[in-house]
Amino acid sequence: MLLILNKNVDEYEVHIIKEKILKMGFELNEINEPNYHILSIIGDTSKIDPDVFKAYEYIDKVVFVQEPYKKANRLFHPDDTHIKVGKETIGAERLSIMAGPCSVESKEQILSIAQSVKKAGASFLRGGAFKPRTSPYSFQGLKDEGLELLKYARKQTGLPIVTEIMSTEYIDEYVENVDIIQVGARNMQNFELLKQLGKTRKPILLKRGLSSTVEELLMSAEYILLGGNDNVILCERGIRTFENYTRNTLDLSAIPAIKKLSHLPVIVDPSHSTGMWWMVEPMAMAAVAAGADGLIIEVHNDPENALCDGNQSIKPEKFTLLMEKLKLIAQAVGRKI
Amino acid sequence: MLLILNKNVDEYEVHIIKEKILKMGFELNEINEPNYHILSIIGDTSKIDPDVFKAYEYIDKVVFVQEPYKKANRLFHPDDTHIKVGKETIGAERLSIMAGPCSVESKEQILSIAQSVKKAGASFLRGGAFKPRTSPYSFQGLKDEGLELLKYARKQTGLPIVTEIMSTEYIDEYVENVDIIQVGARNMQNFELLKQLGKTRKPILLKRGLSSTVEELLMSAEYILLGGNDNVILCERGIRTFENYTRNTLDLSAIPAIKKLSHLPVIVDPSHSTGMWWMVEPMAMAAVAAGADGLIIEVHNDPENALCDGNQSIKPEKFTLLMEKLKLIAQAVGRKI
Amino acid sequence: MLLILNKNVDEYEVHIIKEKILKMGFELNEINEPNYHILSIIGDTSKIDPDVFKAYEYIDKVVFVQEPYKKANRLFHPDDTHIKVGKETIGAERLSIMAGPCSVESKEQILSIAQSVKKAGASFLRGGAFKPRTSPYSFQGLKDEGLELLKYARKQTGLPIVTEIMSTEYIDEYVENVDIIQVGARNMQNFELLKQLGKTRKPILLKRGLSSTVEELLMSAEYILLGGNDNVILCERGIRTFENYTRNTLDLSAIPAIKKLSHLPVIVDPSHSTGMWWMVEPMAMAAVAAGADGLIIEVHNDPENALCDGNQSIKPEKFTLLMEKLKLIAQAVGRKI
Amino acid sequence: MLLILNKNVDEYEVHIIKEKILKMGFELNEINEPNYHILSIIGDTSKIDPDVFKAYEYIDKVVFVQEPYKKANRLFHPDDTHIKVGKETIGAERLSIMAGPCSVESKEQILSIAQSVKKAGASFLRGGAFKPRTSPYSFQGLKDEGLELLKYARKQTGLPIVTEIMSTEYIDEYVENVDIIQVGARNMQNFELLKQLGKTRKPILLKRGLSSTVEELLMSAEYILLGGNDNVILCERGIRTFENYTRNTLDLSAIPAIKKLSHLPVIVDPSHSTGMWWMVEPMAMAAVAAGADGLIIEVHNDPENALCDGNQSIKPEKFTLLMEKLKLIAQAVGRKI
Repeated sequence: MLLILNKNVDEYEVHIIKEKILKMGFELNEINEPNYHILSIIGDTSKIDPDVFKAYEYIDKVVFVQEPYKKANRLFHPDDTHIKVGKETIGAERLSIMAGPCSVESKEQILSIAQSVKKAGASFLRGGAFKPRTSPYSFQGLKDEGLELLKYARKQTGLPIVTEIMSTEYIDEYVENVDIIQVGARNMQNFELLKQLGKTRKPILLKRGLSSTVEELLMSAEYILLGGNDNVILCERGIRTFENYTRNTLDLSAIPAIKKLSHLPVIVDPSHSTGMWWMVEPMAMAAVAAGADGLIIEVHNDPENALCDGNQSIKPEKFTLLMEKLKLIAQAVGRKI
Repeated sequence: MLLILNKNVDEYEVHIIKEKILKMGFELNEINEPNYHILSIIGDTSKIDPDVFKAYEYIDKVVFVQEPYKKANRLFHPDDTHIKVGKETIGAERLSIMAGPCSVESKEQILSIAQSVKKAGASFLRGGAFKPRTSPYSFQGLKDEGLELLKYARKQTGLPIVTEIMSTEYIDEYVENVDIIQVGARNMQNFELLKQLGKTRKPILLKRGLSSTVEELLMSAEYILLGGNDNVILCERGIRTFENYTRNTLDLSAIPAIKKLSHLPVIVDPSHSTGMWWMVEPMAMAAVAAGADGLIIEVHNDPENALCDGNQSIKPEKFTLLMEKLKLIAQAVGRKI
Repeated sequence: MLLILNKNVDEYEVHIIKEKILKMGFELNEINEPNYHILSIIGDTSKIDPDVFKAYEYIDKVVFVQEPYKKANRLFHPDDTHIKVGKETIGAERLSIMAGPCSVESKEQILSIAQSVKKAGASFLRGGAFKPRTSPYSFQGLKDEGLELLKYARKQTGLPIVTEIMSTEYIDEYVENVDIIQVGARNMQNFELLKQLGKTRKPILLKRGLSSTVEELLMSAEYILLGGNDNVILCERGIRTFENYTRNTLDLSAIPAIKKLSHLPVIVDPSHSTGMWWMVEPMAMAAVAAGADGLIIEVHNDPENALCDGNQSIKPEKFTLLMEKLKLIAQAVGRKI
Repeated sequence: MLLILNKNVDEYEVHIIKEKILKMGFELNEINEPNYHILSIIGDTSKIDPDVFKAYEYIDKVVFVQEPYKKANRLFHPDDTHIKVGKETIGAERLSIMAGPCSVESKEQILSIAQSVKKAGASFLRGGAFKPRTSPYSFQGLKDEGLELLKYARKQTGLPIVTEIMSTEYIDEYVENVDIIQVGARNMQNFELLKQLGKTRKPILLKRGLSSTVEELLMSAEYILLGGNDNVILCERGIRTFENYTRNTLDLSAIPAIKKLSHLPVIVDPSHSTGMWWMVEPMAMAAVAAGADGLIIEVHNDPENALCDGNQSIKPEKFTLLMEKLKLIAQAVGRKI
């Protein structure tokens, strides 16, 4: 970490700052030129809160040399992380395709969709039981009954299930019943939830917040990893920008960025990011071409009567065609489906 | 709510959509011109999820006529809401000034700051006990001990206390011990938390999310209000934009916007929004000039050694001077301090 | 266009608004229900400035039913536009690959790069002669000499040339010497320039502004089309968001959006959007998978000594390998390279 | 400027980079620790394009120590710049209030508005003759006739006139006829225009671009200053964010930021930023409280029939009341009106 001091700093101020650094247990280096005065802190600075130094009137800038995350950092863990879920491995050669409805609505609905997506080649069933909704007047999910129906569909099809957790109080229930626990975009910085999920050993699908940087996503992963749970899957699902033709702006450059910075697998959600069913296909294909390890896609047998997100769900037939097209793209980038 | 149909829609499709609206219990109106085909839904449409209609291939646009929130809506509640906390009233003529450190650090620290800000004219003491931090390596607060120290400072000074809640499991503890429960920006859409806070009758200080629109802030307030808790105070604390000279971009136009759309009081946080202590003064003054009902300001006796946010905290002497300047601005807009 | 009136509007106000609409030569329809009062304007409303109505105190919202652009609108021009440049056709089955250095630097440099990219399969040579730079201290391009060197490289290789225009005063020179005139992101709303380019018949490569919506990009294309120049190629090159790991955020969902809204071809610039050479490959592949009609890529034989944008330029050998990979992706989406 | 090298860099690579720096005429300093390898470049680095170094594979980060602008930098010019326009001085104790219609529409209109705003205390008349419009179908201004009418209104009232220039070809005409030349937000990075305005000695009102940082605004000012024209007035007029309740988001923290970084005066446009007439008053007051040197406000005698921006224009009576309120705020911050 570098501290760039103000030109007008006097010796006494420099002394105070240097004392502080030494007391924190770090060593330091100094460059003092006519136009420059820099203190460089030597040691594991990931544990320093940079705001501590920004409070000093005579420190103009604080620059991180080392990234502020360690366990998520590829520097200290060069190999790709592979996450096993039943017979599936996320992050390996074969892409992980998760598909299913926004919300579980009924036994018939979830079973029918699960069978369709399995037949088309999906390897995970997604579906919401507890639903975060902007409006308190919108459908909030079937809750416990939804979980039961997901388990039923898993039993019938063999597909592992992925579903979103809303609060710490459900953790035991989810650990027992679910194969991958999803943390939604709005909870990406719900640090209490992250800490407690870090104590489990369940695979966690951590979605990027609407206004979170890639670095912040990795810091949130760090909370889980630091607890001892190595099974973190990252998910790019669109960020909020000024463009409002699409619901959010899918940031596919986050894929190579995450691959460079971290060893964790990353999948893409082309449904929530765009908010429009007819954009799912081109964005799913682009995501695979950009190097994603998988996709999470909303599929509904009757989108016009879906209880949520019908606008961005594709029908099973369309999903089947998409899987065919994805095979060609996967091949072109040395992956399988 | 208006549904703007595609020009190529056929009669059968229109029939299906109309049937759906009627089955939902609404009436409808229709405009069918050569260039236009519009269905207008009559009734209380705040309960309709617009995505339900966006799923139809032949519906091009869905337009809200009525706002999607009701209890927070000034239309149905024309008078300003006043919220009583002890002897103070938030939203009335006198501005509500909340001041104190980012984190409670020790008995001496919190007491000394509480006494200073009281003397300068603040009417509430703020201070963090449980802290949400981007990095798991940053100081996470004194937790329960911090709450005890806040209560101690309240006892000594008489100032009601404001502190942030991180998770549903702390609600009982907070209801018992705290005067205003703060929901931080990162939890603005933690809907489980909002629902459960709606069941209490405690004043809730709801901070706007970094990437939340004013409408979404009001929808989150609606969750609390719908539970029966009318005591919601909104807080503008900066939004995330491309500009990174300041930590966030303080959106002061949110003040007149909220005042027009809602009856709820709104205060401003010039510390977190700017992230720089020397910007607190001009932004606090601007907030009052723009019509804010109060301010929440970080004050620390020793910012350079603060355990968090020292960079954006002002010293008690500076706070005292600021209060003098704020009096003049308050007068100019017909308020008191 | 729909005008949604305030509930409290009185008859006299409605009368005034209706008179204004009729005087403008439009017909109108009215819905007047207990909770609603809507005036719907019938006719070609693309020529109405919606702000005209927003000035009325009793008009709450103004909703466009028709898109505000006509000549760029696929509705009135269902077939894809193909643009001929020499022997090449942009927007047809074969992808248009434009490659070359940020700036033309010398005869040897531009010729060597032109030969390399031609050999690798590029069909256009790009290169900057007049350069827009944020800092007045940065290299501003070789200007007229740069244009001459581009013409020389064209003569030697047969590749048509693409280069950016900075101001109206250069139009004649560009029309005479250049094959495709590029309008940079910063000039997307330089309306004087657009109007005058509309009077030429040269192909115009119109780059999306850093903070421009897809709709605004199409409105800027409309300026050129309205002048009688049908040869407009759109270019997605990244938008400005809060994420600053990449220089800008490449918005690939703009491709299907533009394809749905307009008949104009759209290409993608993976170099400027990401600002990092190692991201060019995955983003180029993703762009083709998402349906782009072509790419514009910075290639430099010696990026470390390039006079501009070395950070985002790839070397000729890397470009050659990329072209091989792009062939597979192009095949997968039914295109050729 | 600091170059943070990759840990894996070898001696030969370091040698090449060091040679390059020395050849550019700079000196350098080096820190080489187990976890760190930093080269620090000594000298006037404002002239180095940082991209030059980002192209090196083994350079991880490039950090500016010195700001990239010099003439606009308060460091080298500690006193506030005062700009004289006739009898007025911009940037001094008395606030500069510029008021008038979006567009000049007729002799009667401009004269009547000019007289009203003068009577209310405005010191400059603003009005558009050449108008930049998103849609080619919107009113584009009276052009030369508009300029003539502005001159007529100046003659009758004595108010200096401010109006926007669209392209380099009008510079002579503007220099001859206008008192302050406005560069609109869309042209903030029209570098050809900036360079040529730098050759004049006219006061230039430079508006911040919709997606431009404060630093980029100062870099654009640098283009004008570097040409020898010291008369640059900056204008904050709202930036583009995800919030779309207001047209743009007025960034008032830009005022203290600019005051710290630069010596140039800064004014605020509360009309274009909010896009709503009823927000002009609170935002104008907030701007003055935050330290602005002036305001530019749209005033129209008949907003409902204005040819542009009626939605954000206030009537002369409202402007007169606003001026009364602004006096109180100005007093509170030690200014006059």
